[in-house]
Amino acid sequence: MKDASGLRTVSWVKNKVVMIDQRVLPRRLRYLNCTDYRQVATAIRVMAVRGAPAIGVAAAMGLALAAKNSRAKTSEDLLLQLENAAEELRKTRPTAVNLFWAMNRVLRRARETKGDPRDIREAVVQEAVKMADEDIQVNMAIGRIGADLIRDGEKILTHCNAGALATVGYGTALGIIRAAKENGKKISVLVTETRPRLQGAKLTTYELMKEGIESRVITDSMVGHVMANKLVDKVITGADRVLAKTGHVINKIGTLTIALTASHYDVPFYVAAPLSSIDFSKLPSDVKIEERDQKEVHYVGRSRITPTNVQALNPAFDITDPSLVTGIITEKGILKPDELMNLLSK
Amino acid sequence: MKDASGLRTVSWVKNKVVMIDQRVLPRRLRYLNCTDYRQVATAIRVMAVRGAPAIGVAAAMGLALAAKNSRAKTSEDLLLQLENAAEELRKTRPTAVNLFWAMNRVLRRARETKGDPRDIREAVVQEAVKMADEDIQVNMAIGRIGADLIRDGEKILTHCNAGALATVGYGTALGIIRAAKENGKKISVLVTETRPRLQGAKLTTYELMKEGIESRVITDSMVGHVMANKLVDKVITGADRVLAKTGHVINKIGTLTIALTASHYDVPFYVAAPLSSIDFSKLPSDVKIEERDQKEVHYVGRSRITPTNVQALNPAFDITDPSLVTGIITEKGILKPDELMNLLSK
Repeated sequence: MKDASGLRTVSWVKNKVVMIDQRVLPRRLRYLNCTDYRQVATAIRVMAVRGAPAIGVAAAMGLALAAKNSRAKTSEDLLLQLENAAEELRKTRPTAVNLFWAMNRVLRRARETKGDPRDIREAVVQEAVKMADEDIQVNMAIGRIGADLIRDGEKILTHCNAGALATVGYGTALGIIRAAKENGKKISVLVTETRPRLQGAKLTTYELMKEGIESRVITDSMVGHVMANKLVDKVITGADRVLAKTGHVINKIGTLTIALTASHYDVPFYVAAPLSSIDFSKLPSDVKIEERDQKEVHYVGRSRITPTNVQALNPAFDITDPSLVTGIITEKGILKPDELMNLLSK
Repeated sequence: MKDASGLRTVSWVKNKVVMIDQRVLPRRLRYLNCTDYRQVATAIRVMAVRGAPAIGVAAAMGLALAAKNSRAKTSEDLLLQLENAAEELRKTRPTAVNLFWAMNRVLRRARETKGDPRDIREAVVQEAVKMADEDIQVNMAIGRIGADLIRDGEKILTHCNAGALATVGYGTALGIIRAAKENGKKISVLVTETRPRLQGAKLTTYELMKEGIESRVITDSMVGHVMANKLVDKVITGADRVLAKTGHVINKIGTLTIALTASHYDVPFYVAAPLSSIDFSKLPSDVKIEERDQKEVHYVGRSRITPTNVQALNPAFDITDPSLVTGIITEKGILKPDELMNLLSK
């Protein structure tokens, strides 16, 4: 199943995991074929595939590869191998909760499957494929629900890429924009370039152009200016992890500054997040904010922008206070940050 | 006169204007020699020289070149030529007020000079050279006054480049940091890279390294994160124009977002500005915010980061509300944004 734009970020095709290599977009649409779970782990680590829902499903398919390739003779051995592979996949990136959610879900399915190793292998592959299909369904539900918030002619600001490329297809924040467009609304999107890795400039613009939705790029430093000049009606971003207990939103570095600015100028700030991105147990202090290689700041493409020897910080995410968040758009409805624990009983 | 770091941004040397070509820093320290005022105008327009005080003095020296090169036989003709050259120089960049201040000051000196064209030529050159020397003196005074605000061990965040390279030498915001260091204080500086033109990543880091002051680069998107994590004790930026009547600060794009974030986290936000950057007559709506070529957003170095055909915004400055500004550090003392008109009587 592809989304309307034809972008299918992660697929299971003939016992291989096929992914769009997001490092070379927008210049080239190239696919990676992974035949071993370690290749999937590397693809996640180097961000050939990125976006919380996409890495969750990619890791699930990584486990499916580990199952397929296993020569275990007993179910116990196979489960042990899967647990080891899951541990390796979990370590690739520490912040997005989907990775942990996906590993737990696939491992649970493996453990609950009665029968010999062959049955477990089939069950694990089925589960991973099902999770991919569900992801698109969930995004389309988020899109339907969120689209009602958008009025005809509105100007939406989004950060990073929470589109088809951050998910299996369709997207979360961009899924809402897609759905609003499918409902006949004219929307224009301001896209923050999202340094250091430029997912906004490279990926979000690419998706919106394919979709025929008007977009304009700004640097992250222009957020104050565009809001002060009333060029933004609403902000919609994705999330790497939403903490249900406290309402904090952990998302791509820069989200916090945008939320603060939106709050100052009374611009509604929405976060689109599937339940798979919601963490029902942790507190902000429990979450590890990934610190990536300084080189991502020092270089843009092959050009070094800083003097050699100077140091840089490179936190990949920041934590937005619930007081700055207007609503969290999930496949179960739109909730205030302090209502998220109610999802457990839905 | 060079500043302590040995950087002299603009000089008058043997009837030429010699400038550091800031487009090739930090990789190369290359000088441009201008022998015609139109070359100076081009250097300002393409930002080979940038920074409000530096472009003011560069333009004054441009007028000195126009005077030197003039073949006018009468004082009236010479004055007319100078007015035309000044008009061209004023048009290079619309936002920084120093350019207008400098043209007015040199033209006034020319008009007030009695005598033949040769006397006027000499007076104009003298005035431009005097303005350059004064700029360094003024920056050192700002440094002395501002350094008292900084405590030993503090972490200062600065945006763009308000250093020696933004002035004739020594710098405004970085002049304060220099002076604090000269007073024996240990300071570490967080430098925002300052997209699109990366003056923070390229120029501020370069100056601080030459000076032996610890600095770390962050992307503009990391400002919220570093303030939330208490990595910033104070913000000090420069200004392209401060409006004395209302207290608004017009500075490099991104300043507004930093000021909003600082205000939210109770981090003091200071602006270093010589009187030549203070506009005593205009209101915010009177000031033209320069919109520069979209290419500055689309490209970093020679790499295009966005898909072709996508549009970008590129406002070069934003306007920070006086409520977000803790103080303006001038050579006449530190003032609240609503006290600036008092400077007229100092």
